[in-house]
Amino acid sequence: MVVLKYGGSSVETIEKMQKIADKIIDRRKVHQKIVVVVSAMGKTTNSLIETAKKVSHNPSKREMDLLMSTGEQVSISLFAMILNEKGCEAIALTGFQAGIKTEGIHTKNKIADIDCRKIKGHLEKGKVVVVAGFQGLNDLGDITTLGRGGSDTTAVALAAKLGCTCEIYTDVSGIYSVDPRLYKDARKLSVISYEEMEEMASLGSKVMEARAVEIGHLYHVPIYVASSLEAIDGSYIKESGLQVEKRSVTGLSINENVLMITLNHVPYSSKNIAHIFMRLASASVNVDMISQTSPVSGYVNISFTTSKEDITIIDEIIDDIKEEFKGIDCLKDEDIIKLSVVGLGMRSQSGIAANIFEIFAENDIVFKQVTTSEISISYTINKDYKQKAVHAIASYFNL
Amino acid sequence: MVVLKYGGSSVETIEKMQKIADKIIDRRKVHQKIVVVVSAMGKTTNSLIETAKKVSHNPSKREMDLLMSTGEQVSISLFAMILNEKGCEAIALTGFQAGIKTEGIHTKNKIADIDCRKIKGHLEKGKVVVVAGFQGLNDLGDITTLGRGGSDTTAVALAAKLGCTCEIYTDVSGIYSVDPRLYKDARKLSVISYEEMEEMASLGSKVMEARAVEIGHLYHVPIYVASSLEAIDGSYIKESGLQVEKRSVTGLSINENVLMITLNHVPYSSKNIAHIFMRLASASVNVDMISQTSPVSGYVNISFTTSKEDITIIDEIIDDIKEEFKGIDCLKDEDIIKLSVVGLGMRSQSGIAANIFEIFAENDIVFKQVTTSEISISYTINKDYKQKAVHAIASYFNL
Repeated sequence: MVVLKYGGSSVETIEKMQKIADKIIDRRKVHQKIVVVVSAMGKTTNSLIETAKKVSHNPSKREMDLLMSTGEQVSISLFAMILNEKGCEAIALTGFQAGIKTEGIHTKNKIADIDCRKIKGHLEKGKVVVVAGFQGLNDLGDITTLGRGGSDTTAVALAAKLGCTCEIYTDVSGIYSVDPRLYKDARKLSVISYEEMEEMASLGSKVMEARAVEIGHLYHVPIYVASSLEAIDGSYIKESGLQVEKRSVTGLSINENVLMITLNHVPYSSKNIAHIFMRLASASVNVDMISQTSPVSGYVNISFTTSKEDITIIDEIIDDIKEEFKGIDCLKDEDIIKLSVVGLGMRSQSGIAANIFEIFAENDIVFKQVTTSEISISYTINKDYKQKAVHAIASYFNL
Repeated sequence: MVVLKYGGSSVETIEKMQKIADKIIDRRKVHQKIVVVVSAMGKTTNSLIETAKKVSHNPSKREMDLLMSTGEQVSISLFAMILNEKGCEAIALTGFQAGIKTEGIHTKNKIADIDCRKIKGHLEKGKVVVVAGFQGLNDLGDITTLGRGGSDTTAVALAAKLGCTCEIYTDVSGIYSVDPRLYKDARKLSVISYEEMEEMASLGSKVMEARAVEIGHLYHVPIYVASSLEAIDGSYIKESGLQVEKRSVTGLSINENVLMITLNHVPYSSKNIAHIFMRLASASVNVDMISQTSPVSGYVNISFTTSKEDITIIDEIIDDIKEEFKGIDCLKDEDIIKLSVVGLGMRSQSGIAANIFEIFAENDIVFKQVTTSEISISYTINKDYKQKAVHAIASYFNL
């Protein structure tokens, strides 16, 4: 048994769907039981969102989910028809028909459980089961969607429930140490550990969403990421124990969706600092990197980063804070990026941070903040340094 | 409480949807509880069918239903968003969410029952409930569609279950005695009986499908048919007892989707005739008008009409019949139409047929077949006579 997932760019036209169908028919020689998870065709989801924005400034999220879920319903119907037409018996199942139960808030649901009986029944009858990614049904009987990376999450969760491998086919040919568009000599990783992939994904690598990798990690689902059309080897995401190459630094991620806020001249007290961050948290602002200067004359400067989407709400909060703490000065910096290096080897090897400080110094790169996790180090730098920093670090660590 | 139904042409653009939303908000001043049934936007269903035909010569009907049902899912989502945006709380329900249970074969399902609890719950909370027409869920958990006139059927069946009036808004301004495109002086009927409307619909009038009217008849649902955008009075379909004007002839219908087959020189025996029609029935060919000449020298000529879609299967059957009965000669005539006059008054008044024969004679119109029912008379005539026959009959009976 195997779960194969094809993203929107892999099924954006009927011609592409037909090529993928041929590949699946080929795979039947190896796998008796095949579940195919497909996304909406091409940019369908985006155009549905744009239509909704035309009719409402703030479309009701429940109806947004109902609307968006039609995208996969179209692609699974057509894909099953194509397989049937080619003589490969197939059946299309929407999220709720596939037994995918979700919980949480509309447009950002999580998979609560999957009742695989229907899928298993059709697999037993020899059918290829085509499942709509990205969607499910909540306890109220409402159709829901899973948010970013939702189809990957569907595929990995199905593989976890069915106890098989999950193969993610996409428009890149695997997982690279650095985005090949930023560094042309980037190495494709034949194997990467769940931990490293989670870290890279959450730090900005766009091949897979962190949540899908996390599910794979939790349920020990081997994940294979490869090109949907080219017949070249992809990358495995698996347990770190065995084949993972022992490298100190495995990859480099860039996140450009970063906004840095600096509050200068904040009256220093734990209570004040807590108050500011509680205010941000209560507005659901996701604060990432935080840095604070040493107090001088009873005042500190605080910097934190968040994502650019939060800029409107941040502006409101800052106005409130300025009212409360007279004399505070606030700077917003949208011209920064977050550069992160990731590697399981960092656990046992110190000195990676020192290497990078050295690289920055040699290349006259000024960083604004630095944070470290067990297997990664992240820096905020001005976006003008991006290319220079990527090249210097990637070549130093042979990424 | 009231059920309002808007067809595809009424919701084909967002601008049209917004106008309809304003009308519904207006109606809330009168009706506390409003259920709106909407079809897919404009020609969406047709374009989905065309896409399916591109991927498969014979698309699996189950997946066809899954594909087509996305059309209404999009329109209900957007329509509920528009109502919400205008401050009118609304919720969109797909067929299965609205509790519509179906039975039968895919693409031609019938409504088996409706579990209205969810609809009633939302109505109690003061929400306008926007229900997807044309679709439901069968016992297997498969999404199904209701075939031609499906959204009207959904609306009337919901009104029957909820015990309220059903208003059908469409691109014509009511029910006319004759199609106004054929006869410009056609009268709009303020009231028509269920029986007459069923007869007119099954004889080719396209305002409403007969099955929706039949459900209304069975459950005594008052149906009002009017223009979705113009503010002019429409037509009521209701019990014949009360307000129905006592006219001998209420309306005239034209059906152009007619194919006439004539089998000449058939060896005459009841067994042979039965054999031919059993052969047609077993291939699901819907035979309409049948006529037969008196036997001459042990042979008869048989003519029957069917719809043009059946031409391929008819050709196969005729080849078989020619093998079995040597010497049979077969003619196919696609250039005919079926003209029907309908009126409850025919039950008590004789002579309508005689009037029409006279009209035909005066106007040199040759008819090929004639059949009568309790409240209608139908003729097949060459399509070249269409305009002349419509004008002569409509002006004679003051339609």
